Amino acid sequence: MSDNARPISAADTRTLAAVSVETGSRQERKQRTRQALQDAALELLAERGFGSLSLREVTKKAGIVPTAFYRHFASMDELGVALVEEAMRTLRRMIREARSDPRTSTHMIRASVATLYEHVRAYEDHFRFLTRERYGGTGAVQRAIATELKLFASELAVDLARFENLREWSTDDLHMMAELIVTSMMATAVELIEARPRDQETDERITGTAVKRLRLIVFGASHWRSES
Amino acid sequence: MSDNARPISAADTRTLAAVSVETGSRQERKQRTRQALQDAALELLAERGFGSLSLREVTKKAGIVPTAFYRHFASMDELGVALVEEAMRTLRRMIREARSDPRTSTHMIRASVATLYEHVRAYEDHFRFLTRERYGGTGAVQRAIATELKLFASELAVDLARFENLREWSTDDLHMMAELIVTSMMATAVELIEARPRDQETDERITGTAVKRLRLIVFGASHWRSES
Repeated sequence: MSDNARPISAADTRTLAAVSVETGSRQERKQRTRQALQDAALELLAERGFGSLSLREVTKKAGIVPTAFYRHFASMDELGVALVEEAMRTLRRMIREARSDPRTSTHMIRASVATLYEHVRAYEDHFRFLTRERYGGTGAVQRAIATELKLFASELAVDLARFENLREWSTDDLHMMAELIVTSMMATAVELIEARPRDQETDERITGTAVKRLRLIVFGASHWRSES
Repeated sequence: MSDNARPISAADTRTLAAVSVETGSRQERKQRTRQALQDAALELLAERGFGSLSLREVTKKAGIVPTAFYRHFASMDELGVALVEEAMRTLRRMIREARSDPRTSTHMIRASVATLYEHVRAYEDHFRFLTRERYGGTGAVQRAIATELKLFASELAVDLARFENLREWSTDDLHMMAELIVTSMMATAVELIEARPRDQETDERITGTAVKRLRLIVFGASHWRSES
């Protein structure tokens, strides 16, 4: 033991605990406010595009003063990119669930569409944000979504590579197929968000079509020769 | 001949001709101003969404006073719907060209993608408007595009019904396939609009992927059993 070192006293422990609690709760508070800003933005986005949101509106809805915004985000674009990350976590959680129960491809397709359906209905704001800003947005938010969806399709391509009849496929072709699946799933998400009337019959018609679309793609894949 | 009737004199003919020329040119002028408003709006839309356009900006760009707008359109939404119709005419012209030369399905796919490519590059503003406002827009313009694209897919479904191996398909399944093709083609249009760098290599990569996507769908179709 060196001269500087001494055993930790009970008082030290109390001090450390107090600092840690204080830091913890301050961080928690900060995290809560950050999340409140993201939630406020998502709520405002139900009716319009990100480009039309103002910092003032978002802070007002979140119940904080406008200047406090900058303690959480450097710009509205940074808030937008944080929303992209939040919404993509929903998509990733969804694909993990669909992945956990493979079995036959027919079963997998039905299970994937059922999972998509549940997630769109539970996180409609995330899906609306992603689909609307992907095609309707501009700037940093649109680029972030385009990049994230490309990464998402790449992850799906890796999953596809494990299937017996796709094992011989080139990486390019697996990406092509994965992107077609993602495009098709996002189109289904848009249909579900726009569904009128909101009833079981309409939902079943949309998910039924989604299943058929994916079956068509998978049927195509089993008869594909991987050449250009 | 009744008392009221008399032969048409040379003077009458001149008067009628003058009226007709005047009316003609007035209608033509009106049509030109209307088109100038649509062109101005499309140009402003290159960078942002229709929802953020103001009547004042559009009239300023078209070189007319704001109040004159109402001689041509009852509202901005009506202008938006006119833009939808203009852009859809481009899509219909495109499909007519692709349709005029069927031959084999492989040839048809290559020809369709080539036609899509030429039309996207020639009418980028139309395609950008349709894809952006379909997913990013709200209100009357978004609804008009959704309806028009559904009609467009229905017309394609009729074309598909003529193919030997699709003759037994149900109407629902033909619509499902047609919508998947339209979704896939619109995704290709977005990729072409966003292509960076703008060079032959990038364009060829995008159109190459588009050909493969359509082949995958057509391969799927030839092995499809039309059941739910």
